[in-house]
Amino acid sequence: MSIVHRIHNFSAGPAVLPLAVLEEAREHLLALPGVGMSVLEISHRSKPFEEICFGAEESVRRLAGVPDGYQVLFLQGGATMQFSMVPMNLLPASGTADYIETGVWSEKAIAEAKKIGGVHVAASSKGTNHDRIPSAAEIRWSSAPAYAHMTSNNTIFGTQWHHLPMVPAGVPLVNDASSDIFCRPIDVAKHGLIYAGAQKNLAIAGLTLVIVREDLIGRAPSSTPIYLNYATHAKERSLYNTPPVFAIYILHLVLKRLLATGGLAAVEANNRRKAEKLYAAVDGSGGYYHGHAQVADRSWMNVTFKLPSGELEKRFVAESTRQGLDGLKGHRSVGGIRASIYNAFPEAGVDALVAFMAEFARTNG
Amino acid sequence: MSIVHRIHNFSAGPAVLPLAVLEEAREHLLALPGVGMSVLEISHRSKPFEEICFGAEESVRRLAGVPDGYQVLFLQGGATMQFSMVPMNLLPASGTADYIETGVWSEKAIAEAKKIGGVHVAASSKGTNHDRIPSAAEIRWSSAPAYAHMTSNNTIFGTQWHHLPMVPAGVPLVNDASSDIFCRPIDVAKHGLIYAGAQKNLAIAGLTLVIVREDLIGRAPSSTPIYLNYATHAKERSLYNTPPVFAIYILHLVLKRLLATGGLAAVEANNRRKAEKLYAAVDGSGGYYHGHAQVADRSWMNVTFKLPSGELEKRFVAESTRQGLDGLKGHRSVGGIRASIYNAFPEAGVDALVAFMAEFARTNG
Repeated sequence: MSIVHRIHNFSAGPAVLPLAVLEEAREHLLALPGVGMSVLEISHRSKPFEEICFGAEESVRRLAGVPDGYQVLFLQGGATMQFSMVPMNLLPASGTADYIETGVWSEKAIAEAKKIGGVHVAASSKGTNHDRIPSAAEIRWSSAPAYAHMTSNNTIFGTQWHHLPMVPAGVPLVNDASSDIFCRPIDVAKHGLIYAGAQKNLAIAGLTLVIVREDLIGRAPSSTPIYLNYATHAKERSLYNTPPVFAIYILHLVLKRLLATGGLAAVEANNRRKAEKLYAAVDGSGGYYHGHAQVADRSWMNVTFKLPSGELEKRFVAESTRQGLDGLKGHRSVGGIRASIYNAFPEAGVDALVAFMAEFARTNG
Repeated sequence: MSIVHRIHNFSAGPAVLPLAVLEEAREHLLALPGVGMSVLEISHRSKPFEEICFGAEESVRRLAGVPDGYQVLFLQGGATMQFSMVPMNLLPASGTADYIETGVWSEKAIAEAKKIGGVHVAASSKGTNHDRIPSAAEIRWSSAPAYAHMTSNNTIFGTQWHHLPMVPAGVPLVNDASSDIFCRPIDVAKHGLIYAGAQKNLAIAGLTLVIVREDLIGRAPSSTPIYLNYATHAKERSLYNTPPVFAIYILHLVLKRLLATGGLAAVEANNRRKAEKLYAAVDGSGGYYHGHAQVADRSWMNVTFKLPSGELEKRFVAESTRQGLDGLKGHRSVGGIRASIYNAFPEAGVDALVAFMAEFARTNG
């Protein structure tokens, strides 16, 4: 085995995994104990895989406290596929869905919903380059929306909902939680549907988690492509066709570990501490660093900030990369720096970045 | 590292991978050389992943001799998603597509196409429980089909096309090659579109390979969900959204190895030898074993056969499992035994099964 050198991965996703999970996957990569085959090779109809798949489902239920009456589905195609699946299943052609527009991913979700039915943008932060989450006073719901859609964390702009919006009674809340799912306890009962690409907080790319209330399943027209109908997957417990076996295995390992180390309350404490350290470094820099997101809406997952000039930002990225702090360049729609510090991102990496920021400001002041 | 005990995996898929690929993946699972992150964690926008993804694409092109004017796409959702994507992109609501029905997977493809436009079943083997591939004389094309669809290998029934059907001039041939892609050289130029779930001959579950002629891209109506439009993925070289990174990495390793060991001609020689050995054991059993598929249409990938009674078949499965020959139980629609021996299935496993069959027939005659 070669010597393993790992750097700090601040990428917006796919993102860092717990080292213990990587080590367990490596340990058994040639053959699962007692099975005699790699998890990369086992049939999705086999007992060993059922244990993994149903085990992962059970972990989702325990970790998030999923109430009775909800299905947990493991799908493919990422949030992008959900942008279409949600309206294809929940939005009649003659109906209207309400969307709160808080960034690029909300905009993409809106564009797909418009192909299916009516869309009402109930609130938008576009006017201020998505630097905030709309306040309750700004939100104007339509009269009887089929559902209300939100994006709980906005990777590009670095904003995050720290409360759920007040949705009119009886309107299902649909939440794209791709970039902050399970970053803290979640009240599933307040949602009609939650979806999340797995590659940030859950597992690896190629898996999408959907938690959906059962009364919302079975509403799709019969002309809906079979893969895109939630009913197909609910009926077969995510085994209608071959699921992304290895991604579900990694999810299983990640969630088992979270359950064993204090659950989502512990995750929350950890994430809060990491984010506070990093924002303190921004706020304590005497204005050298300044955040993009408004303070109350700052994301715990993606910390966005700027330097006094684009020139300095380029140098910041180049020097941090050389020091093993990778992926800090901000998205082009915001510019500046973005440090993504998802669940599995180690606190030591935050400490390293904070130290780097102080030293950089000192020598480039 | 624990001692690794591997058994012979005759599963219909997901299926066995080359041991060398598993070993290479394990060696680098904590960090790719020179990258400092696991392939499970790297950004799909990173240079290291571009090398993997574009490298895999280049390997597909070299291995299959993909001519200019074709796109190679890496998608999600398996063949099931392609059952819908093909007609959503190629079949106008007022048009007709011709399907050759050779088994359960063709039937599912037909059901999805009917949701989009007209379907004409140009030939079917249903009357004889799909024990054969329809002859040229049986095929009745419609007057101007949007495309002609075939399933090159039928996992459940153990039949395989050993030639391509003669399609009317100008009609694109669409081939679901999920279970025999790259089992031998392939004449891509004779196809309009080839699709294949990766979990049998290519890589792991969660990745679908699509090879599509460029003039067939861009025909989907503008109302098509963005993920289900081939144009979306062609334009962004499979990086419109986060692709299944690890599955593409495994594909990259598998194809690199095939290219280094003689390409598809060598694969063909190997597969032919394995299949011939196994069918010889069936045919040489004095009638104790008898195949389901007609001899001319026998699959090299899935060898289906029966024993004198259901009782003996049960005993055969139980005893072979005990001896480390796993996954031999036939699909319920055929019964009997099914030995899936895809590209990476080792010849030693075939030898072990042949020996087992002889001994079983001797002691249970």
